[in-house]
Amino acid sequence: MNIKTTEIARYLGETVTLHGWLHHVRRLGGVNFVIVRDGYGLAQAVASETDLAPLAELTDGTVLTVTGKVVAARSAPNGAELHAPHISIITPIREAPPLTLHQRTINATLPTLLDHAVVANRHPERQAILRIVAGAMTGFRQTLQAQGFTEIQTPKLVASATEGGANVFRLGYYDSEAFLAQSPQFYKQMMVGVFERVFEVGPVFRAEPHNTTRHLSEYVSMDVEFGFIENHFDVMVVVEQVIRGILTAISHSQSSELAMLRAEMPQMAETFPNIHFRDAQQLIYELHGEDVRGEPDLSPQDERWLGAWAQAEYGSDFLFVTGYPMVKRPFYTHPDPANPEFSNSFDLLFRGTELITGGQRLHQYADYLAALDAAGLPHTPFASYLEAFRYGMPPHGGFAIGLERLVMQLLGLPNVRLAALFPRDMGRLLP
Amino acid sequence: MNIKTTEIARYLGETVTLHGWLHHVRRLGGVNFVIVRDGYGLAQAVASETDLAPLAELTDGTVLTVTGKVVAARSAPNGAELHAPHISIITPIREAPPLTLHQRTINATLPTLLDHAVVANRHPERQAILRIVAGAMTGFRQTLQAQGFTEIQTPKLVASATEGGANVFRLGYYDSEAFLAQSPQFYKQMMVGVFERVFEVGPVFRAEPHNTTRHLSEYVSMDVEFGFIENHFDVMVVVEQVIRGILTAISHSQSSELAMLRAEMPQMAETFPNIHFRDAQQLIYELHGEDVRGEPDLSPQDERWLGAWAQAEYGSDFLFVTGYPMVKRPFYTHPDPANPEFSNSFDLLFRGTELITGGQRLHQYADYLAALDAAGLPHTPFASYLEAFRYGMPPHGGFAIGLERLVMQLLGLPNVRLAALFPRDMGRLLP
Repeated sequence: MNIKTTEIARYLGETVTLHGWLHHVRRLGGVNFVIVRDGYGLAQAVASETDLAPLAELTDGTVLTVTGKVVAARSAPNGAELHAPHISIITPIREAPPLTLHQRTINATLPTLLDHAVVANRHPERQAILRIVAGAMTGFRQTLQAQGFTEIQTPKLVASATEGGANVFRLGYYDSEAFLAQSPQFYKQMMVGVFERVFEVGPVFRAEPHNTTRHLSEYVSMDVEFGFIENHFDVMVVVEQVIRGILTAISHSQSSELAMLRAEMPQMAETFPNIHFRDAQQLIYELHGEDVRGEPDLSPQDERWLGAWAQAEYGSDFLFVTGYPMVKRPFYTHPDPANPEFSNSFDLLFRGTELITGGQRLHQYADYLAALDAAGLPHTPFASYLEAFRYGMPPHGGFAIGLERLVMQLLGLPNVRLAALFPRDMGRLLP
Repeated sequence: MNIKTTEIARYLGETVTLHGWLHHVRRLGGVNFVIVRDGYGLAQAVASETDLAPLAELTDGTVLTVTGKVVAARSAPNGAELHAPHISIITPIREAPPLTLHQRTINATLPTLLDHAVVANRHPERQAILRIVAGAMTGFRQTLQAQGFTEIQTPKLVASATEGGANVFRLGYYDSEAFLAQSPQFYKQMMVGVFERVFEVGPVFRAEPHNTTRHLSEYVSMDVEFGFIENHFDVMVVVEQVIRGILTAISHSQSSELAMLRAEMPQMAETFPNIHFRDAQQLIYELHGEDVRGEPDLSPQDERWLGAWAQAEYGSDFLFVTGYPMVKRPFYTHPDPANPEFSNSFDLLFRGTELITGGQRLHQYADYLAALDAAGLPHTPFASYLEAFRYGMPPHGGFAIGLERLVMQLLGLPNVRLAALFPRDMGRLLP
């Protein structure tokens, strides 16, 4: 019977076949372990020198099958191992890989690791990270589908660099030009007019002019938008459900990956605490003596202080900061009706770093015309977008989660590139 | 209580609130029906002239709530209607929409419909089509996840126009240039080296130089690739499971949409029949007297004939044609070991039109080097891709389904643009 490495302990006493890659042959004082890596994990076979004969002159990465009898073994991966294995070669490999994959961590610089991501992603730790990336997408979708959200896929080729115009990739499009979408913002709003509640998981493109540890030129954005809200607090309720849904899904489906990576799952209060932007600045002044009151945004240091405060005060790794000043938010942001210099928007801080931005959007056609005028933007490039409001839109809002950044922060990775399969930045288009 | 239109019949005798858009007010011989459209469907309220007062001077598209008592009504949408409604306006609309949405079908030319897709997508038939698009993605993922496939999101910005070079979009990328991925082919193969079994749902980009009813410049590709196969017949098994999984998911979750669109669900034999390319040509010769034997590909007429034959012979709307000549397949295609001028590849015909292409790929490093040489392609742009094979790959294969084309063929739409939210073609980047 063909089984996965992770299933081995279910077949004690039976003869099974593993297929996969030769992870390594370990020779320990006369005992040989053939370690097999498949797409799910590792398993080992205890092999005599004779059993090893088919591997003569072959090296790690060789594709093979190993058939043997399953015996419980506490120290083996997944709690069991094969005895008296028969090894059969599928694809012989004689050249050592450019990175050693059989040690606990990859012993290579980040550029080398990324240059050889095709091979490096086969390392068990890399597999585990990328499987958590997949699990996060699944948790995101499951949570939203259970609440009547409809999945959309919106165009990535767009006619104008509508959201700002900086950091946008431009390309020739037949006889004219096009841009790569920096976010599905406008399209997800339009689709609220169709389905009320929508989400999208897809690539977005940012021509980031700097190399930082937190930015990619292409990343996966998990977007949500929905209608018939009261204000941004209704959006925050869904943010919290989505975060809990993702964490639950990962805890359930990727528990061994989380254990391998020694991930600290977030501490969560009964409900995520929130604080108004203005109160947050006042708090920083009182706690740390630094007077940031009146600043239009929070600095990274401010965010760290607030994160520490939420942890101390509420035992929560998450903190919503609400009501950011309008001046720092995009033109479609809904102002706070009671205090229009502040907005009905929020950031979610996770362990003292911004993870999610969201809020309520304008929904009245006249408000859009006024907001574009106030921002000095022409109406024409927005004509299609404006049709949504011209012909009826409910109060609505939404948010976006950067998939790689979520996983970076969750796992404490030092660089967002490590949460991408094949990252893209100023200097990297390959592999 | 706030409910969806589609839930109305569950609340007989209760007072509920619907929110949504004013679809239309129908006046039928002294009885007025206020038809409300939400993100899920339609519901109606029976209204007196007094009840209608809040709608004075307002038109279709007005966003509102309607509260009333639920009464069974066989002719009402979803089998019940509201009586003694109280109407409350959320967003008043005074300007008639550019397309009439309250008739059974949209009475507009295709260009007008597409120009105003933001509004047109609110039409119940458009909603239904686009909800089936979403359902197809869900069915695709569910089928594969249940079989141990891992979801991936691969880069859309790539360094070279590797697969052919025609029909590729090119853009400036910092100080160099990049291309938009025409398919995730190379990346999904690389990821078979990591996870064995992978799938992706994401945009692909084709600079199609013609306007046809079957081509888009950007579409959603549902890709599958997996390892440890015997040959392409193992891939065809998964194709069949995926198609059945999609159809089951849609039948279950979008049954009312399918009914509204009068969709004819495909006829399926116990198992999808298959025929070898060479035998298909012989069959066409025998049945229709047209000698296409020796041609390197099937014409649309050939495909129609074969589709009719599969229907007559097997009662199947699906037919696999296997073993296409190598000369028409990409360089990574695995030849038929017994007959190397033919390939271990297939097309799936659906009602006489090609729906899916797939097959087994080469997996030996040396075979790739030889195949590139034979195709006159340099090795350098493929260096990363080749790393996958250089350091060990199992026999593997896969396939891709164009999401919009699947839905077009399933629903019998006259144009693939009608299965896209916001289609992109030579002449269209908006909305």
